[in-house]
Amino acid sequence: MKKIAVLAGDGIGPEVMEQALKVLVAVQKKFGFELSFQHADVGGAAIDSHGVALPESTLTLCAESDAILFGSVGGPKWEHLPPAEQPERAALLPLRKHFDLFCNYRPARVFKSLTAACPLRADIIGDGFDILCVRELTSGIYFGTPKGREGAGEDEYAYDTMGYKRSEVRRIAHMAFAAARQRSGKVTSVDKANVLTTMVLWREVVLEVAKEYPDVKLNHIYVDNATMQLVRDPHQFDVMLCGNMFGDIISDEAAMLTGSMGLLASASLNTENFGLFEPAGGSAPDIAGQGIANPIAEILSAAMMLRYSLGYGEAADAIEAAVEKTLDRGICTADIAVDRSQAVNTAEMGDAIVAAL
Amino acid sequence: MKKIAVLAGDGIGPEVMEQALKVLVAVQKKFGFELSFQHADVGGAAIDSHGVALPESTLTLCAESDAILFGSVGGPKWEHLPPAEQPERAALLPLRKHFDLFCNYRPARVFKSLTAACPLRADIIGDGFDILCVRELTSGIYFGTPKGREGAGEDEYAYDTMGYKRSEVRRIAHMAFAAARQRSGKVTSVDKANVLTTMVLWREVVLEVAKEYPDVKLNHIYVDNATMQLVRDPHQFDVMLCGNMFGDIISDEAAMLTGSMGLLASASLNTENFGLFEPAGGSAPDIAGQGIANPIAEILSAAMMLRYSLGYGEAADAIEAAVEKTLDRGICTADIAVDRSQAVNTAEMGDAIVAAL
Ligand SMILES: [Mg+2]
Ligand SMILES: [Mg+2]
Repeated sequence: MKKIAVLAGDGIGPEVMEQALKVLVAVQKKFGFELSFQHADVGGAAIDSHGVALPESTLTLCAESDAILFGSVGGPKWEHLPPAEQPERAALLPLRKHFDLFCNYRPARVFKSLTAACPLRADIIGDGFDILCVRELTSGIYFGTPKGREGAGEDEYAYDTMGYKRSEVRRIAHMAFAAARQRSGKVTSVDKANVLTTMVLWREVVLEVAKEYPDVKLNHIYVDNATMQLVRDPHQFDVMLCGNMFGDIISDEAAMLTGSMGLLASASLNTENFGLFEPAGGSAPDIAGQGIANPIAEILSAAMMLRYSLGYGEAADAIEAAVEKTLDRGICTADIAVDRSQAVNTAEMGDAIVAAL
Repeated sequence: MKKIAVLAGDGIGPEVMEQALKVLVAVQKKFGFELSFQHADVGGAAIDSHGVALPESTLTLCAESDAILFGSVGGPKWEHLPPAEQPERAALLPLRKHFDLFCNYRPARVFKSLTAACPLRADIIGDGFDILCVRELTSGIYFGTPKGREGAGEDEYAYDTMGYKRSEVRRIAHMAFAAARQRSGKVTSVDKANVLTTMVLWREVVLEVAKEYPDVKLNHIYVDNATMQLVRDPHQFDVMLCGNMFGDIISDEAAMLTGSMGLLASASLNTENFGLFEPAGGSAPDIAGQGIANPIAEILSAAMMLRYSLGYGEAADAIEAAVEKTLDRGICTADIAVDRSQAVNTAEMGDAIVAAL
């Protein structure tokens, strides 16, 4: 029996989480495995109940679990707090750090029935595309040292350091190649090896790791060209392997190109495949409590959890297929409905996906 | 009388340059100013004639001129040379360095008659968009020190330094605000001030400079969000102000979004408004010598030269209007023609634009 730490959080978090658990319960029966769900407070809810966004008890529960299924945190109620105490920063960053969640998977997939929402021309989109952005999450220029400011007046100089260790590049590259094996077998490494020394090392290590995956195709692309090629023809990509900053940029562009940002899941993993799974979107306080939020991103995050942390790849496939089938049948929540008067609510969407399993 | 150093270079360079000069001759009559054109070798042509991509005589001519009108350099003939001696690196980088051309203007404009070529959905494009990317070109992470590699084995560490001095941010910000004044009066500064110390200084200085331009509207956007917003709605941007690396990324994405990369001009300027003006595309050796290349990017580069280096803004406007009128009349070279059998050649396009003046 696998233990899941369920951190529903704030805003629409609890509503969409309820549907994800419903789907997990249905799928575990079908595939003959058992999950135990342990709930704990996080984010604003935890600030209200425990005084901090990530209580010790929540962290302990996570450490005793096989994976963390996360909802969303934050909302206007906690915006007056100092930045370091706000739900997003005080809950997610410590979780990433504590469990060394260095690997961020961000799928950007356009479902066939939703291609009309895509900002690209119909002949470019075709039947939709399916990209997995693999972003290194704990190193690179956002964390590099030294950084600071020195000097005064017009000569004042501010600086940051981009840096990677060979071992850091190696472990994220392995995550990309391993993911590609479960997909279309292609890795595109995004770098800027023509000008950045860090990226020369990056490319060297990626080439080394590639030798261990002779069945996976590898190519390299400069980050500026990558932003162009995503627009010109997103179908050319399967797995995009990126450092922290380039992954931040590329995964967001790819997400926007799907046209359905509310449907996107994400996973943050460590070397033991322990991970935190959460919708890429936010807590949407404006529609919280109304029962109309789209639960698909949370449900797809649960599928990623099955695939990447728990080793239940078939069950994950089944959930994704059920989501696709449901959308193909024209069942949509308000955020993606062409005719909003026909939209289903959060629970109805969850039920429809369970029925499609 | 203003002196123009004409460096046509290799590939299609000389062919498209001929048309740009034709247009300049026509416009100077109309607006009552006089230009003198001095030709010199550059790139592969200069390697063949002088043994180096940037001969001393060419550099001297440039120094004695009011602006440099550049064609394009490079081609298969010189690809066997060591990278540092190849036409692109050995001609353009020293020119930028010698004249301190720190400011790169890259317009990304969709002409109304060419919106169908744009990769975005028709309802997003509308009648086209018009963005000017202002990129700092001589500092930032591509040139920052220290950079290098240290350690060995799995601990080997490679690093680069992103850095800006207050004075460097100030001068590029001024270029952005000045350009915005001649356009729609809006600057969007692209940064990552939420995580990078360099970008905190960047934003501070941009805010300071903005006070000197109360007529220009300023807003700030994170680079990852910028790549998304460009796709979602490019019309929201007028001037995008970027550091070197972010400008590299953003200007390329914006260029691709126009769908007509062959039409894009560029300018690299110093604090005295001395500059080098060139098409954003390359030397296209595959079609060189056939007289079918599209001269519009070179002609629009000549217009930028009139506007930004020579102070003939009205003449620049006239050229841009003539290009638009020509395209509206359905006159297209093969690269942008819907029906290639109706395409005009390089000289015919030049003549049509002169006629439209
Ligand atoms: Mg981002
Ligand atoms: Mg570029």
